[in-house]
Parts: sequence; structure tokens; C-alpha cells
Amino acid sequence: MASSRSFYAAFDLCVCLGVLCVVFVCFWNSHWRGGFAWDGTESQFNWHPVLMVTGMLVLYGLGAVLYRLPCTWSQGKQPWKILHAGLMLSALLLSITGLTAVFQVHRNLKIPDMYSMHSWVGLCTAAIFACQWLLGVVGFLCPCSSLRFRGGLKPLHVWMGKVVLMLVLASCISGINENLFFALNGVSAAAYSSLPLEAWFANTLGVLIVAFGVVLFGILSKADWQHPDANNEETALLLREDRSGQLIDNRVRVKEESHDADI
Amino acid sequence: MASSRSFYAAFDLCVCLGVLCVVFVCFWNSHWRGGFAWDGTESQFNWHPVLMVTGMLVLYGLGAVLYRLPCTWSQGKQPWKILHAGLMLSALLLSITGLTAVFQVHRNLKIPDMYSMHSWVGLCTAAIFACQWLLGVVGFLCPCSSLRFRGGLKPLHVWMGKVVLMLVLASCISGINENLFFALNGVSAAAYSSLPLEAWFANTLGVLIVAFGVVLFGILSKADWQHPDANNEETALLLREDRSGQLIDNRVRVKEESHDADI
Repeated sequence: MASSRSFYAAFDLCVCLGVLCVVFVCFWNSHWRGGFAWDGTESQFNWHPVLMVTGMLVLYGLGAVLYRLPCTWSQGKQPWKILHAGLMLSALLLSITGLTAVFQVHRNLKIPDMYSMHSWVGLCTAAIFACQWLLGVVGFLCPCSSLRFRGGLKPLHVWMGKVVLMLVLASCISGINENLFFALNGVSAAAYSSLPLEAWFANTLGVLIVAFGVVLFGILSKADWQHPDANNEETALLLREDRSGQLIDNRVRVKEESHDADI
Repeated sequence: MASSRSFYAAFDLCVCLGVLCVVFVCFWNSHWRGGFAWDGTESQFNWHPVLMVTGMLVLYGLGAVLYRLPCTWSQGKQPWKILHAGLMLSALLLSITGLTAVFQVHRNLKIPDMYSMHSWVGLCTAAIFACQWLLGVVGFLCPCSSLRFRGGLKPLHVWMGKVVLMLVLASCISGINENLFFALNGVSAAAYSSLPLEAWFANTLGVLIVAFGVVLFGILSKADWQHPDANNEETALLLREDRSGQLIDNRVRVKEESHDADI
């Protein structure tokens, strides 16, 4: 019960930080960067930070901790698996729209693409996320997926899930940095180095993003907050599938990985 | 035995990637950025990326996985704790020197400090790392530290250790991005967006840094590669300390955290 209370305290903090991140990124781009449109101009570019922070960071993060909610533990896992996949698909679609926004603006305004460190890491993160989602659906939701494949995929899915979170943070921080250098040093009279109000505000967004990531990472790393049947299910499935000598190896492998967080 | 072989394969890959990161950051700053000096000019600034990548990333990362080396498991933990603390102190001292280099150059060339997202996240990371090191020495090496304090500190130490790694990656990626925008767009004829050889090279350094972080994170997350006595020791210590009703709570807490990686 005490563990459940501390989980909900951490989860509520995570949700509050996530909401603040979305509010901050929307206000920054609406108040200082000229608002939103889908017309190939800089107003379209403003969708990029909003959609990436909302999709790749907040929605992705909340989707990742879904299985940790103790209120879901008394119910079957299948509906929560579908909701997890649905949230991740929404996150992926928002991210793809956010990437489309920036590529269209670059093409329209004849700005070169894919040269900065931010763009390399960001696109790589989105690609890993897309592969992760596809493999997750094939492995954990398709009835035709082999139980052996599912057992082997799970530790990779958990590890890559946390890697995506780590890369999303790096992408967000480098993106805010790059955006402010372009916006404040290129056009505006208020250079980034004089720390005008916009720079304070956007840097604070970066701090909120880091705080969201740190709390989320804490929730995912705490084994005590893991779904009690998270790993038993896979072990049981493997037990049912194999009755040869290979069975023991599979069980051991799945149990070894069971210490990892379940996302 | 198979687990030990796969550990050493991952560890060797990690060491190779770490060495490549150091070679790349040295070559970049030596070949394209004018080399090294300690004279308050841009040549002094070049120590900043070299020392941060070498200290905060590579030395820190290798110090973090020290306990995972199976060849150390048959020996007492105390010498390895001291080596772990020593490696982390070297990483911290290199980082402080790297920060000093950039602050002195900024003061000398009258360049404003601490305004960019990179500087906020980077300094915050170094501060957390310093607190982490101090608390680690007080908690795990000082004979006067209470066993209760040690048991409570351990999960925090493990969690914050991984958080520092996550923030180091964000700092490195945003730092390379910022450095290239300043260096290539500000002075050189070859703008960053035309992806000259230097940009390719430095972006590849960023990719190597990400790969190092991903492999390191994989090693730290795999419970199978954890020191077999990593958590039993703390549990046993708490058992000896308390013989009241409080004892059970402490044991449960320490055992709950024992799923986390030991760094």
C-alpha cells in the first residue's frame, strides 16, 4: 500500500511535468515564434517542437509507464497491451507529423536538411522508435508470433524502450539549443547570450523536459513498481511451448531478464 | 560461462567505442579547431570537449561498469570500491578542468556565460555528478557512515548514476551541435549546412558517443551481469544493525531495490 502510494506520487509528478512541458512548448511557439499554420513557412516549423515534445516525449513516456499503474493489475493484460500499442502509435504519428512539418518547411524555404547533430540523433531516434513499435506489435500482439520470438524480444523491447527515452532527451535538449540560436541570433535583436525572457522560458522548458525524463526513468527502473505478472506470463508461455531440453535455457533466459523494468 | 563471454563481448565493444570517442574528439580539435593551449584563447576552449568526453563520458562510463567484470567477483569488494571511487574522482577532476577551460576563455574573450541550454544541462550534470561522488564516498567508503544510511543511499546512487549518464549524452550531443554552429557558421567559409568534412567527422563523433551510451546502458541494465553479492552485502549489514520491528522494513526495501543495476 505504501509502495502504491509512493508510485502514484511519482506518477502524478510525472503527469504534471508532462503537462507543463506541453504547455510550455505551445506557449513558447505561440507567443514568441509567431504561432501555428501549415503553409510551408516558419509558422509551420513551430509544429515541429510542439509535436515532438507532445508525441516523442510526453505521450511516449506516459505510454511506457502504463503497465506500472497498480489499478490495472487485477485485470487481464491484453486490453492494456492494446492501449500501450495505441498510445505508442499516437506518439509515433505525432512524431512523423512533426518531422513532416520541418522537412516541408525546409524544402519550401530551400533550407538544407539533415546536417546538424540534432537532426542526425533526432531522426535516428524516430527510426528506432518506429522499428520498436513494429516489432512490438508483431511480437506481442500478433497471434501468429512464436512464443520463442516473444520471449527473446521482450528484454530487447525493454532495453530499447529506455534507449529511445534517453535519445529523445538528447534530441529535445539539442533541438531547443539549436532553435534558440537560430531564432534569437539570426533574426531577433535579442541575442541568445543576453538571455531575454524567451530564452529563459525555453531553457526552463528544457529543464522541465529533463525533470520529466528523470522521474520517468526512476519509475521505469524501480522493480518494486513493476507489474507482478509481467515476467511470469512469458515464462509460463515458454514452459507450455517447449518440453525438450531447450526449455530450461529459455526459462533461465527469461527469468534473467525479468529484473529489467517492463515497459 | 556463456553469460561471461557475452559480457566481455559487450564490455570490449564499450571500451573500443570509448577509445574511438577520445581519438575522434582529440583529432577534431587538433586537426580542424587549431589544437591545444592554456592561454585563454580558442585553443584553450578546445580542451573543453576533449576533457568532458574523456572524463564525464568515457572514464565515468567505464568506472560505472567496473563491478560487472566477472574477474573481480572472487575478490573482496573494498579494493574495487576504492578503484571505482578513484576512477570517478579522475572523471570529476577532468570535468572540472574542462569547465574551468571554457569559463576562463569566456572571461578572457568577454563572451557571456551560462545562457545556452547546453550550458544549463551540462553544468547541472556536473553538479549532480559531484554530489553523487561526495555522497558515495561518505556513504560507502567512510567507516563512520551508518549502515542504515548506506542501505538507503544505494538505490539512489544507482538511479542517479544512470541519470548522470543520460544527461551526459544530452550535454555531449547539444555541445557538438552548438560548437559546430559557432565554428562553421561564424568564422569558417564552410557553413555547417553544407556538411564539410569537419561536420561529418564531428557528427560521427556524436554517433559514437550515442553508441557508447547505448552499449553502456545495456550492460548496466542486464541483471544477469551484476555482481552476485552486490545486494546481499547491504541486506546482511542491515540485518546485523537492527533487531527491532524496523528491521523487516529495511530488508524489504533493500531487497526491492536489488533488481536495479549495481554501479
